[in-house]
Amino acid sequence: MKITQQHIADLNKVQDATYQAELGLLEAKLGRKGINLQDVINKVAQFQVAIPSWALGAGGTRFGRFSYGGEPSTLEQKLDDIGLIHALTKSAGAVSLHIPWDIPQDYKAIKELAQSHDILFDAVNSNTFQDQAGAKNSYKFGSLCSSVDASREQAVQHNLEVIKIGDQLGSKSLTVWLADGSNFPGQRNFQTGLIHTEDSLKKIYAGMPDDWKLFIEYKPYEPNFYSTVIQDWGTSFMLANACGERAYTLVDLGHHLPNTNIEQIVATLMYKGKLGGFHFNDSKYGDDDLTVGSIKPYALFLIFNELVYGMQNNPQNPYPAWMIDASHNIKDPLEDLIQSLEAIRIAYATALLVDQDALKAAQLDNDVALCQELLQDAYRTDVRAILKAARIQSGAVADPIAAYRSLAVRSALINERGTASKATGL
Amino acid sequence: MKITQQHIADLNKVQDATYQAELGLLEAKLGRKGINLQDVINKVAQFQVAIPSWALGAGGTRFGRFSYGGEPSTLEQKLDDIGLIHALTKSAGAVSLHIPWDIPQDYKAIKELAQSHDILFDAVNSNTFQDQAGAKNSYKFGSLCSSVDASREQAVQHNLEVIKIGDQLGSKSLTVWLADGSNFPGQRNFQTGLIHTEDSLKKIYAGMPDDWKLFIEYKPYEPNFYSTVIQDWGTSFMLANACGERAYTLVDLGHHLPNTNIEQIVATLMYKGKLGGFHFNDSKYGDDDLTVGSIKPYALFLIFNELVYGMQNNPQNPYPAWMIDASHNIKDPLEDLIQSLEAIRIAYATALLVDQDALKAAQLDNDVALCQELLQDAYRTDVRAILKAARIQSGAVADPIAAYRSLAVRSALINERGTASKATGL
Amino acid sequence: MKITQQHIADLNKVQDATYQAELGLLEAKLGRKGINLQDVINKVAQFQVAIPSWALGAGGTRFGRFSYGGEPSTLEQKLDDIGLIHALTKSAGAVSLHIPWDIPQDYKAIKELAQSHDILFDAVNSNTFQDQAGAKNSYKFGSLCSSVDASREQAVQHNLEVIKIGDQLGSKSLTVWLADGSNFPGQRNFQTGLIHTEDSLKKIYAGMPDDWKLFIEYKPYEPNFYSTVIQDWGTSFMLANACGERAYTLVDLGHHLPNTNIEQIVATLMYKGKLGGFHFNDSKYGDDDLTVGSIKPYALFLIFNELVYGMQNNPQNPYPAWMIDASHNIKDPLEDLIQSLEAIRIAYATALLVDQDALKAAQLDNDVALCQELLQDAYRTDVRAILKAARIQSGAVADPIAAYRSLAVRSALINERGTASKATGL
Amino acid sequence: MKITQQHIADLNKVQDATYQAELGLLEAKLGRKGINLQDVINKVAQFQVAIPSWALGAGGTRFGRFSYGGEPSTLEQKLDDIGLIHALTKSAGAVSLHIPWDIPQDYKAIKELAQSHDILFDAVNSNTFQDQAGAKNSYKFGSLCSSVDASREQAVQHNLEVIKIGDQLGSKSLTVWLADGSNFPGQRNFQTGLIHTEDSLKKIYAGMPDDWKLFIEYKPYEPNFYSTVIQDWGTSFMLANACGERAYTLVDLGHHLPNTNIEQIVATLMYKGKLGGFHFNDSKYGDDDLTVGSIKPYALFLIFNELVYGMQNNPQNPYPAWMIDASHNIKDPLEDLIQSLEAIRIAYATALLVDQDALKAAQLDNDVALCQELLQDAYRTDVRAILKAARIQSGAVADPIAAYRSLAVRSALINERGTASKATGL
Repeated sequence: MKITQQHIADLNKVQDATYQAELGLLEAKLGRKGINLQDVINKVAQFQVAIPSWALGAGGTRFGRFSYGGEPSTLEQKLDDIGLIHALTKSAGAVSLHIPWDIPQDYKAIKELAQSHDILFDAVNSNTFQDQAGAKNSYKFGSLCSSVDASREQAVQHNLEVIKIGDQLGSKSLTVWLADGSNFPGQRNFQTGLIHTEDSLKKIYAGMPDDWKLFIEYKPYEPNFYSTVIQDWGTSFMLANACGERAYTLVDLGHHLPNTNIEQIVATLMYKGKLGGFHFNDSKYGDDDLTVGSIKPYALFLIFNELVYGMQNNPQNPYPAWMIDASHNIKDPLEDLIQSLEAIRIAYATALLVDQDALKAAQLDNDVALCQELLQDAYRTDVRAILKAARIQSGAVADPIAAYRSLAVRSALINERGTASKATGL
Repeated sequence: MKITQQHIADLNKVQDATYQAELGLLEAKLGRKGINLQDVINKVAQFQVAIPSWALGAGGTRFGRFSYGGEPSTLEQKLDDIGLIHALTKSAGAVSLHIPWDIPQDYKAIKELAQSHDILFDAVNSNTFQDQAGAKNSYKFGSLCSSVDASREQAVQHNLEVIKIGDQLGSKSLTVWLADGSNFPGQRNFQTGLIHTEDSLKKIYAGMPDDWKLFIEYKPYEPNFYSTVIQDWGTSFMLANACGERAYTLVDLGHHLPNTNIEQIVATLMYKGKLGGFHFNDSKYGDDDLTVGSIKPYALFLIFNELVYGMQNNPQNPYPAWMIDASHNIKDPLEDLIQSLEAIRIAYATALLVDQDALKAAQLDNDVALCQELLQDAYRTDVRAILKAARIQSGAVADPIAAYRSLAVRSALINERGTASKATGL
Repeated sequence: MKITQQHIADLNKVQDATYQAELGLLEAKLGRKGINLQDVINKVAQFQVAIPSWALGAGGTRFGRFSYGGEPSTLEQKLDDIGLIHALTKSAGAVSLHIPWDIPQDYKAIKELAQSHDILFDAVNSNTFQDQAGAKNSYKFGSLCSSVDASREQAVQHNLEVIKIGDQLGSKSLTVWLADGSNFPGQRNFQTGLIHTEDSLKKIYAGMPDDWKLFIEYKPYEPNFYSTVIQDWGTSFMLANACGERAYTLVDLGHHLPNTNIEQIVATLMYKGKLGGFHFNDSKYGDDDLTVGSIKPYALFLIFNELVYGMQNNPQNPYPAWMIDASHNIKDPLEDLIQSLEAIRIAYATALLVDQDALKAAQLDNDVALCQELLQDAYRTDVRAILKAARIQSGAVADPIAAYRSLAVRSALINERGTASKATGL
Repeated sequence: MKITQQHIADLNKVQDATYQAELGLLEAKLGRKGINLQDVINKVAQFQVAIPSWALGAGGTRFGRFSYGGEPSTLEQKLDDIGLIHALTKSAGAVSLHIPWDIPQDYKAIKELAQSHDILFDAVNSNTFQDQAGAKNSYKFGSLCSSVDASREQAVQHNLEVIKIGDQLGSKSLTVWLADGSNFPGQRNFQTGLIHTEDSLKKIYAGMPDDWKLFIEYKPYEPNFYSTVIQDWGTSFMLANACGERAYTLVDLGHHLPNTNIEQIVATLMYKGKLGGFHFNDSKYGDDDLTVGSIKPYALFLIFNELVYGMQNNPQNPYPAWMIDASHNIKDPLEDLIQSLEAIRIAYATALLVDQDALKAAQLDNDVALCQELLQDAYRTDVRAILKAARIQSGAVADPIAAYRSLAVRSALINERGTASKATGL
C-alpha cells in the first residue's frame, strides 16, 4: 500500500463547504490580536513529530494483548507504515528506532527507504529493561544501576552499540529510559544505585559523537513498584548536569505522580536549557499511554503554552525532539497515531494564538481573571481549519482519518501482510 | 449599583464584527449534523445556575485570607450582588442560602428583593461543621454522626429549622453537607457513625414538606483527614435509598479522590434516578474550589455529556439542582462567578453538539476512534457565539466580563460599602 | 519434593533461645488487658488463606517477565507447591482455581492430591479478560458488559462452565473479576454497559447451586485506562444487591484510587452483610500486587481491625473468603507467598490484641489521643512469637523462610522440573 | 504549672512489672545481631526534636477551628508549654520561633526562661504568606516571587529582620517556607517567578551570619492550588545550589504529591550533602499535619532508615535540624506533641536495629526476600522499652501521656490561663 500524490489530489478535490469561510473568520479574529494567520499556518505545517518504531502494532497490558491485522513485522514495513501516516498528514517526518527490536540488516537500503518516505532518523532508543535471548547477564535486578558489575557493563556496552547503529543512520541523539528501581523497601541501596547510574551514564555520554545529545527520561514507577532510580525530573536534571552540556532531561507526559504540574517542569527545564525532548501521550491514572489529547487536552495546551514561550524566549535550550509514545490496545495503531498527531498540532496551534504581550501585561498587573480570559480565548478557538490549511499547503490530505478510511488502508495492509503478523515491541 | 436595561442596551449597541458570521457558520456546520442552532441557543439560554450566598466575598485558606473591597455584609447586599451577575448574564437566576449565615430578618422584604432581581430561592444549606456562638453542644467530634446524643439532636433540630426558613422563601430542597468524620484511626467506630448518620438523616427527611427533596453530599476528606462518614457516592446513595424516594445524592466536583471518573458516577446516579444536584467548581489537587472550567474543561464537558444524555433518556431522574460552589481567594468574586457561569454554559453547549445517533452507532460498532472523533468534534467547536446569542436573546450583555469592567461595578460597590466590609462565610 | 513430618520435627528441634521468654512476657502483658494468650494463638492457628493457582510462577509487567526456575507447569505441580507452603506454615489450606488455566483432567485424582496436601478448593475464578485460542468471540471490547450479544453470552456461558468445574471439586463460590471498561471517553455508553453487566451477572447468579456465593470484584482502572464498568465498591454493592442474597462484594486491596480509606469500606460492607471475600496484596501506586505487608503494614492492621470487629459483631455477614492475590516479579514465588501469609497473620494477631472495651469507651468519650494509644499499643506489640506458637501447635515449622531455605526447596524443584518450565497465568 | 524532679521521681517509683524483663530480652536478641542495647538507648536518649512556637494551640481548617482551653497566649507561655513537654520526655529540647508571631520583648528574659527549661533556639521561621496589620505591601500575589518590586523587597527585608531576631537568641538557621504560587493557569509566568525567587533567596542568604544555614522548603500545592513556585525537592535543591554552600533543602513530610517515595528523596539529598532539616507530621491525603506516626508508621521507619544510613555514611551532610510541624485540630496539643515525639523516637530506634551489614550483603546478592526480612525484623521489634529506658536515664518520666494525665496538666493550665486564651498561629 502506498499513498500517491494522485490519491491526495483526488481526496482533496471535494472541499468542505465552510472551510474557506472559517479560515476567513480566523484571519479577521486573529488579526485583531495582531496575529497573522499565515504565520500560524506555516508554523503548524513545519511542526514534525517522530513516530517510534514500536508503536505501529497493537499494544497490550500484563493482562493480555489483542492483535491487530496487518501489523508490520519488519523494520521495512514499519517505515512503510510511518510513510503512510506521513503521506496523509505531512507531520510525521521522522522515526525513532528501538534497539534491539529494529536493527537494520542493510543500512543503505533502510536509509533509502526512509528517504523515499521523506522520513528522518530521530533519537535512537536503547533497551535494558528486558533480557534478550542469549544475553549473558540479566537485567532482572537493574541495568545501569546494577550492583552486578557485568550487568552494568553489558548495559553500557549495549548503549554504545545503539549509538553506533544510530550514527550510521544519521541519528543525532540517544534516549535512555531505565526501568531500574526496586519493588520492595530495602531491596536496593538508593545511594549506591544512584552512583552506579551516574557512572554508567557518564560512560555512555563519553561514547557519543561530539554532535550527539543524550536524553535522560524519568519515571516514578512501573515496572518497578516501590522506587525507580530516576524517579523525577530533579534526579534526571542532576544526572544530566553531571554528564555534561549535551545531556538533557526528556519529559514523557505519562511519567508523573498524580496531579503533577508538568508545564511548570517544562518551564523550569527550558529556563535552565535542559529540556531535550518530549514524549507525547495521554493518561488518566498512570503511564496509560493513551492517544494524545484524548483525556486532558487543556493540560496539553498549557504545556504547549510553555513550549512556545520557551522556544521564543530561551535560546539556551535546543529545539526539543518530539515523539509520540503511546500504546494502541484497542484502536487501529495508524488511526491512533493520526489522532495523536492532530491533537499535538491543535495544542501547538492554539498555544500560538495566545496574545503574549497582553498576557505579560496582565501578569504584571496581577489581573488574574484577565490572564485566564487571555489563555482561554486562545484555547477555545477552533483551530481545525488552521490544521487543514497547513496540511493542504504541505501536500497532505485535508482530513486524514477520513482519507485513511476511504482508501481502506488497513484492509490493504491485511491483504499484504495477513492477520497473524505481529510487530515487535511491548 | 444597579444595572439597568439601558446599560445593557448601550453595551450591546456595538457589536463584534465577526459575531454574525460566526453564528452563520455554526448554523451551517450544525445543520450538517442535523442539529438546529436556535434549539441549542434556546437550551443554553434557559440553563440557570444558583449562586450560593457565601460565595460573594473573598474566600481563604487555613493560611489566611486576603479581603476584597466592597464585599456584601448583609443578605440584602448578597442578593444585590447576585442581581448584578444575573442582570449581566441572565444565567444566575437563583440563590442558595446558607443557614445560619443568612437568616432573613424580614421574609417578605427579602422575597420582594429577590423577585426584583428575578432570583428564585433554590436549595437551602445547613451548617453543622462549625460551632455557633452560644451553641449548647459542640460539633467538634461530629454532628449527625455524633455519639453524643445532644450534639446529634441539636444538629437534627438545626436542619429542621433550616427547612422551615427555606419553606417560607419558596425553597423546595435541603442540601446536607457533613464534615463529620475522624482525623485518626480508631477515633470513631465506622459502623456506629454510619448508623447514627442514617438515623439522623431519616429524622430530617421525615421533617421535610411533601414536595421537598433532600440532597446528600459526599466527600472523601477535609476538614477531617482520616475518614469522612459519607466518603463517596456509594455511601451517599445507600443513605439516600434508606431515607426514601425524595432523597438524592448531590455531586460536588471537588469531592473526589485523585483520578476519579466522575462522569461515570453521574451516569450511574441518573440511571438509578438518584442524582439530585450538582455543585460546580474546578480543582487540580483536592477540594480546591477554583473557577469552573479553569483547570479541566474537558472533564467538565464529559460530565455534561452524561448530564445531557441523562436529561434526555432518564425520566426517572428529576431535573437536577445546579449550583456554583467555588472559593474566590484572589479574584474579584463577581468576575470569578461570571467566568464560572460562562464555563458551565460552554460545557453544556458543546455537550448539546454531540451527534448522539452517530455516537450510539459507533459505540455499537466498537469503532473507538470514531467515538472519540464524534465527541471531540463537539468539544473542539467554538461555541462562544452561541452563548452570546443566548445572552442577547435573554436581555443580558453580549460580553459580561467586559461589561462588568466598563461599568466599573467593583468601584461602585466599594464606594457604597467601603473596603472593610466582610461577607460571612468561609 | 515433599516436606515430611520428620523434616518438620528436625527443623523445630533447635529452638530460638528467647522464644519461651517472649511468650511468657506476652502472656503477662496481654493478661493485664484481659486477653488470653492461648485464645489468640488458637485463632491465629485457625486462620487459613487460599493460594490462587496462578500465583506459583513468576509474574511480569507489560515491559517483560523474568522467569523463575522450577515453576509448576501443571495443575498437579501447582497443588504440590501449595502443599509445600502449607506443610511449612499450616496457614495455606486452600486453593483458588483459575479457569481455563487450571481445568482438571481427572477430577478424582486432583481431589485426592489436594486432600493429600490437606488443601480445600475455595472460590473458583473465571477469565473473560483474555481471548482463548479458538474462541469464537472476542473480549477485546468487553465481556459481561459487551454490546455484542455473542460476546456477552459466551462470557456468561464460560462462568456457568466454571461453576460446574468448581462444583465437582467442592468449591462453594465463584469470583468474578471483570476487566470490562473503556480506554477512551465516549467509547462505551456507561448506562448500557452497566445494564448489560447487571443482566449477565443475574444469569450467572441464577446458574449457581443453592449453596454457592457470587463474589463481585471492583477496580477503578487497568487494563482499561479511562473507565471500568465496576469501578468501585458502590457499583459492586449495587450489583450484588440486584443479584440477590448470596451475591457479595469482594475487596482486593490493590483495586482502589490513591488514598482510599479501605478499612471504612470494609466496615460498611460488613455492616450491610455484603463482604464476601478479600484479596490480599500490597501496593504503593496502583494494582502493584506486591507482597502483603511489604509497603503499608499499618493500613493492613487497620483493615484487620475492622475485619475482627465485623467477625465479632456482624452475624449478618458470612465468614469471608481469604485469598492472596500478588504477583511475584523478582522474588521466589513460594518465598513471596510465605512472607505474605506471615504478614496477614501478623495483622490478624495484632488486631486481636486491641482492647475493644477500652477502645469503645474512649470513642464514646471522644478521647481521641487515647483511642490512638489503644490501637497502637496493639500494633506495636511484637507478635511474632504468637505466630510461631500457632505454627508449632499446628505441626508447621517455627521459621518457614529459614526452613524453606535450609531444605533447599527451590533447588529440588529445579531439579525435578528444570529451569524452563513455565506456569500459566499472568 | 511546672513539673519538678520530685514529680518525676514519684511518677517513676512504681515500675511496669514486665519492663526489666523486656529490656533483658531485647538485649539478648539484639546481641545476636551484634547490636548493643545500651548504645541504642543512648542514641535514642540524645535525639532531640524542636517544637515550633505555633504548635501549642489548637489548629484549624478553612472550615473552622475548635479552641482548646488553656492555650498559651504569649511567647513566655509557649516556652512554658514546651518546658512541660521536655520535662516529661527529655526529647523536646528546642524551640523554633515563628516571626512575627513570636517576637521577644525582652531578649535576655526570654533566653533565661528558655534556659530554665533546658530549651535551645533552633531555626527561626519567617512569614510572607499573610499580610500583617499595617503592612505597606501585600503578599496576596506572592512574596519572594512577586513581580511587584515593593512586595518582593518587603519580603526580603522581613527575612533579614527574622535573622537578626534569631541571631540574638542563638539560632543558627533560617527556614523559608513560601506560599508563593498561583491559583490559575496563566496567572504567573513560571520562569519570571523562579528568577525573582532565586534573586530574593540570594539576598537573604547574603544577609545571614557566616555560621548560619538557610533551609528552603518545597510544597506542591496549598494555599495556591494551581502551582507553587518551589513545587518539589528538585526546585529547592536547584535554588539551594544557586544560593551557596550553606543553603539546604528542608523536607516536610506532608509536602508531597500522592505516593511520592520520600525516603528516596532523603537519600539523594544526603548523598549530595543538601538535607538541611526535617519537619515531621503525618498525612493520608495532603498536608494534613496529623500526629507523627498516626497514619503511615512504616513509611516513617523507612525514612529514618535512610536518615540513619546518611548520618553514618554521609559526612558531607550536616546533622539535620528536626522539628515537629503538626496541627492539633481535635487533640490536646500537648498530648499530640508527646505522641509525635514518641513516634519519632520509635522510628529512630527501630531504624537503629537494622542489621546494616547483613542488609548490604543481601542487597549485593539481590536477595530481595532477605532484604525485606532484615528490614522488617527491625520494624516489627517492639522498642517501647528502649524509649522508656532512654527517658528514665535522661530524667524524664517512664510513661509521658499517663504522667501528663495523672498530673492533670491541662486542668492546671486552664486554671492559670482560662478557657478563652488563644495561641497565635494558624
